[in-house]
Amino acid sequence: MKKRVAVLGGSGYTGVELLRLLASHPKVELVCVTSRQFAGQKVENVFPSLRGMCGLEFTDGEPADIAGDADVVFTALPHQAAMGVVPELLQAGLKVVDLSADYRLRDAAVYEEWYQPHSSPQLLKEAVYGLPELFRDDIRQARLVANPGCYPTSVALGLAPLLKDGLIAPDSLIIDSKSGTSGAGRSAKLDSLFCEVNEGFKAYGLPRHRHTPEIEQTLGQLAGQPVKVSFTPHLLPVNRGILSTLYATLLRPVSQPELDELYARFYQDEFFVRCTGGVLPNIRQVVGSNFCDVGAVVDGRTGRVVVVSVIDNLLKGAAGQAVQNFNLLLGLDETTGLEAVAVWP
Amino acid sequence: MKKRVAVLGGSGYTGVELLRLLASHPKVELVCVTSRQFAGQKVENVFPSLRGMCGLEFTDGEPADIAGDADVVFTALPHQAAMGVVPELLQAGLKVVDLSADYRLRDAAVYEEWYQPHSSPQLLKEAVYGLPELFRDDIRQARLVANPGCYPTSVALGLAPLLKDGLIAPDSLIIDSKSGTSGAGRSAKLDSLFCEVNEGFKAYGLPRHRHTPEIEQTLGQLAGQPVKVSFTPHLLPVNRGILSTLYATLLRPVSQPELDELYARFYQDEFFVRCTGGVLPNIRQVVGSNFCDVGAVVDGRTGRVVVVSVIDNLLKGAAGQAVQNFNLLLGLDETTGLEAVAVWP
Amino acid sequence: MKKRVAVLGGSGYTGVELLRLLASHPKVELVCVTSRQFAGQKVENVFPSLRGMCGLEFTDGEPADIAGDADVVFTALPHQAAMGVVPELLQAGLKVVDLSADYRLRDAAVYEEWYQPHSSPQLLKEAVYGLPELFRDDIRQARLVANPGCYPTSVALGLAPLLKDGLIAPDSLIIDSKSGTSGAGRSAKLDSLFCEVNEGFKAYGLPRHRHTPEIEQTLGQLAGQPVKVSFTPHLLPVNRGILSTLYATLLRPVSQPELDELYARFYQDEFFVRCTGGVLPNIRQVVGSNFCDVGAVVDGRTGRVVVVSVIDNLLKGAAGQAVQNFNLLLGLDETTGLEAVAVWP
Amino acid sequence: MKKRVAVLGGSGYTGVELLRLLASHPKVELVCVTSRQFAGQKVENVFPSLRGMCGLEFTDGEPADIAGDADVVFTALPHQAAMGVVPELLQAGLKVVDLSADYRLRDAAVYEEWYQPHSSPQLLKEAVYGLPELFRDDIRQARLVANPGCYPTSVALGLAPLLKDGLIAPDSLIIDSKSGTSGAGRSAKLDSLFCEVNEGFKAYGLPRHRHTPEIEQTLGQLAGQPVKVSFTPHLLPVNRGILSTLYATLLRPVSQPELDELYARFYQDEFFVRCTGGVLPNIRQVVGSNFCDVGAVVDGRTGRVVVVSVIDNLLKGAAGQAVQNFNLLLGLDETTGLEAVAVWP
Repeated sequence: MKKRVAVLGGSGYTGVELLRLLASHPKVELVCVTSRQFAGQKVENVFPSLRGMCGLEFTDGEPADIAGDADVVFTALPHQAAMGVVPELLQAGLKVVDLSADYRLRDAAVYEEWYQPHSSPQLLKEAVYGLPELFRDDIRQARLVANPGCYPTSVALGLAPLLKDGLIAPDSLIIDSKSGTSGAGRSAKLDSLFCEVNEGFKAYGLPRHRHTPEIEQTLGQLAGQPVKVSFTPHLLPVNRGILSTLYATLLRPVSQPELDELYARFYQDEFFVRCTGGVLPNIRQVVGSNFCDVGAVVDGRTGRVVVVSVIDNLLKGAAGQAVQNFNLLLGLDETTGLEAVAVWP
Repeated sequence: MKKRVAVLGGSGYTGVELLRLLASHPKVELVCVTSRQFAGQKVENVFPSLRGMCGLEFTDGEPADIAGDADVVFTALPHQAAMGVVPELLQAGLKVVDLSADYRLRDAAVYEEWYQPHSSPQLLKEAVYGLPELFRDDIRQARLVANPGCYPTSVALGLAPLLKDGLIAPDSLIIDSKSGTSGAGRSAKLDSLFCEVNEGFKAYGLPRHRHTPEIEQTLGQLAGQPVKVSFTPHLLPVNRGILSTLYATLLRPVSQPELDELYARFYQDEFFVRCTGGVLPNIRQVVGSNFCDVGAVVDGRTGRVVVVSVIDNLLKGAAGQAVQNFNLLLGLDETTGLEAVAVWP
Repeated sequence: MKKRVAVLGGSGYTGVELLRLLASHPKVELVCVTSRQFAGQKVENVFPSLRGMCGLEFTDGEPADIAGDADVVFTALPHQAAMGVVPELLQAGLKVVDLSADYRLRDAAVYEEWYQPHSSPQLLKEAVYGLPELFRDDIRQARLVANPGCYPTSVALGLAPLLKDGLIAPDSLIIDSKSGTSGAGRSAKLDSLFCEVNEGFKAYGLPRHRHTPEIEQTLGQLAGQPVKVSFTPHLLPVNRGILSTLYATLLRPVSQPELDELYARFYQDEFFVRCTGGVLPNIRQVVGSNFCDVGAVVDGRTGRVVVVSVIDNLLKGAAGQAVQNFNLLLGLDETTGLEAVAVWP
Repeated sequence: MKKRVAVLGGSGYTGVELLRLLASHPKVELVCVTSRQFAGQKVENVFPSLRGMCGLEFTDGEPADIAGDADVVFTALPHQAAMGVVPELLQAGLKVVDLSADYRLRDAAVYEEWYQPHSSPQLLKEAVYGLPELFRDDIRQARLVANPGCYPTSVALGLAPLLKDGLIAPDSLIIDSKSGTSGAGRSAKLDSLFCEVNEGFKAYGLPRHRHTPEIEQTLGQLAGQPVKVSFTPHLLPVNRGILSTLYATLLRPVSQPELDELYARFYQDEFFVRCTGGVLPNIRQVVGSNFCDVGAVVDGRTGRVVVVSVIDNLLKGAAGQAVQNFNLLLGLDETTGLEAVAVWP
């Protein structure tokens, strides 16, 4: 039996990626896709890549209408817009996978420090942070899954084995991340024009990018103590992909084989995390897939470890992970509809 | 029951694309992948995108060994190398889909004018030109399928409705094609370096690119008379995709709706050809898929029609079409293993 | 003695390219740069590449103010906006190089068919079409130079030797052009986003791109008879560069050496046109320079000639040619301030 | 009076950039350009961007021949090859700007640990490290200038104000650098192919990239004590540009205005270093120019400072800095021939 699924905010890059995945998901019947900007237009005319694959039109649907039609809703709305609809959807008995930042932080005060006032802080305790490799059991029971940010996913999966094992100093963490341009969204901004981005490269958001508290929350849970990080995001002139280079000071000497073994063991049952040992991964090998590839190198000279993790920001960093969470919510095989590997080249 | 399949020449861009498709094809068991350059190395180490998806090593296998293991062989070898193994494979009772140019031309004299001497000209009459949309019934019966070139596929599908209908002057055809850089192959040549290609654009191969006689052979069949074309390929700074802009003089005035109707009718039963009418397609909407999208515009001022067709040169232009042919050879649904649509962006 | 120069519309890609050239031009004192969007901001803050090179702020200046300050004005405004200020500037005694389309077409009726009503048609006869290689003497005497469009420049220089010599059939011309994305301007449009353009390629504007009548006007002058062309522009995923592939039917057989000789002779005194013979040029070899490189190949099989011409759309196709015209207007060496060659890579 | 100049190794990306700069340098007469690979070919045929600008052929010249013709030599040879010719050139009385790594390290033992045996260690003490902003006076007197590496240039200029001022902990330095692909050179390697690099991003060379000791040598001089750094280079899918993100722990709290003031004062007399304060620079704003743009941000939360410096790896990171050193050697204005700014876009 297929589940009836709605996507709110279906015309951004995360939205269209959800549509692509859900249109061919064997357990999904897409019943509604909203977009204020493109309401009334056929999905396949807005995204000709989907021609013949999706017969829907974008609608301007209200939560109440959607609640009547769907069993599960993916909200791919901007932060603040999401909290405007999620409570009503939950109240109507739907399950929600929210891809915004609105329900990711446990502490409303932290949320309000980095974003703006929160209108449904009571849901923050209930929402489950949707990183299956770390919180799978909670996700299975959830009503509301807060799908993680793209940068935080790459960072948490890269550092989890080291922090859990107590191998690194939590106050030494430097996170240097680089994201493809789709991370900036599909709105028509001067800074996102081809001619402004192509052949360029820059850091941005310093020193207070909004993914910082989300990263610190998860790393703190893993470390068992509060963690403060230096986090610098950069903009890559590619469509997709995040690579995070993670620096940490080792608390005791470790050999490269020990490090390789630590990662291999930690992720031995995880389909979507592939450990590459000392051969550091390229974003290319995961783009178009839901994989996170992680490599790590010991630097004996400096007593540091350098970890490199790569994901597709729109898949494991957004829509793919959302479908992975959906599969968990519904008791399906976690990889359903997520089998694609990267094309090369 | 799965078929036992071998890929000869599996480390080029066409080869690895075949591996990607075949590794997840429900009716295929990959038994052998050869590569002189990478013999002895694990496929997933050479192509980390396939990590966890393909357990094979590249081998340096001889045709005789392969014949014993496999039922069907894909030869993704350079021209001239292919004709060195294909006859032996056929003699051993295997079916062969050959992705080289060696068996595409019916006339040995034409082949030898544009390439070099042919060592098995007797097979040219038997080989079936593997463009399913035009020659499906012959392919189903074939022993040896000559998989079409990338440019010729985009051109034949773009012009077939017009030529079959007798709507255009066969001596007026101008073919201006642009291909992504993967079309130049994976060998380490100065001209294919990132820094030589990136931010550049050029024509090449003028005035005698080797795809010319293949194009003229198919267009001639469609027109029912010999055809000579001007064909200019160009190199695009993108990984994948071919766009052919096709100019022809109309033999009688046609309206845009008539033209739209002609294409829609001609391709109404074809899953892999999507007609876009007067909205001309972008290579982006087919890259990563086996689709060929075709649009056409009447220019009343000049009495010409301009057709634009786009394919992924490694899929509908090579490995995807080869799998489509394989499906036909085996009596499977033609779309098996070829369901992916393009990601956006 | 330096000339006092103003640039109207200085924050688009053509505008900033003018600023870059004029800021280091030895005979220019930049006195005013306007931009409605960025009025009040320092040029070097909007374009950090110019940090330390240009002390001006963008202003919202009225033509009357500018007329008092400047001797020569470059108008880099959209069409229709240009005609709103040019007459007043001329009346105030200034010389004007207009980079819009407003004064390029001799015939007001043709302009109005392809654009919109013209408010100063009386100036169309006086304006000189600023293609120095063809109309140098007229430019020297002009008050108002209509700087050519980017596509028309590449086409006119590519075909001039053949048309002047009567070697090709004027009704056979097919023009297949490809432009870098800066040609689409610097306004924040969805279609110009990095993620929409990158790894893509498409035709656009068919069958009636507005550069068509401008192309036909110049080619008609060269041919001595009216000319109708098929013109298809395409969008390249590069910042800069235009490559036009030009097809024409030969009226008599020509050898490759004869063709080489024809081009070499026609352009022997032209610094900015470099003939490459049968080695067809890449846009890369002219990007960042004011050169137009032209190659041509005879195709004996089809009786056609194929010409490839390349320019930087913002230099020889816009700001560079405007400065070349400025140099002519002032009696300077035509290459002043235009000596840069392309970087490689 | 012009100096007679030779370039050894003129067909790599650094070589051709030297040719471009020297061909238009008002005080240079290019007398000889060597290239083993292209000996006998005209420079303008190998690099069509230089058509009409350089009449030389590549030669296979021996040092002895060159010594007779030239006054100054630029050696753009690989390390180890450079030390094979530099001693002879010096002995013949020439001045040498060496762009290889062979004479950059003061300590032969360190050189031999990271490279291979050194055949002229006696010259290491004499060679002057050619970073004009730090060692200008020594360069003026030199016979042999060791032109700095690209990464080390970006790092030293980024950190110099902080280290000189004693503001940061020398053992806390993390250097995360990203380079355009021209940094990998012009040899035909699989890893440098367009299709392998485009749309990709990766770290490489960990944990022992050869620029590490060069970086540590200069930073140690600035700090007045030995320094060990974590250095991770990455490969950007762009032609040119290096961006280094530099992390350091502050030894005392500093405000953003204090930091801005520190950089502005340190570089107040330097034409080629532009301080951008808290507005972090993009590689785009320096590509094609000899500028190094530096921004820095205080992060009070973590007690760290984050510096971003950008250069064109082939200009300030190689050929441009070499010409800057040449100007110093000859007593010319340091900016002669280096006036170009970045094009935008």
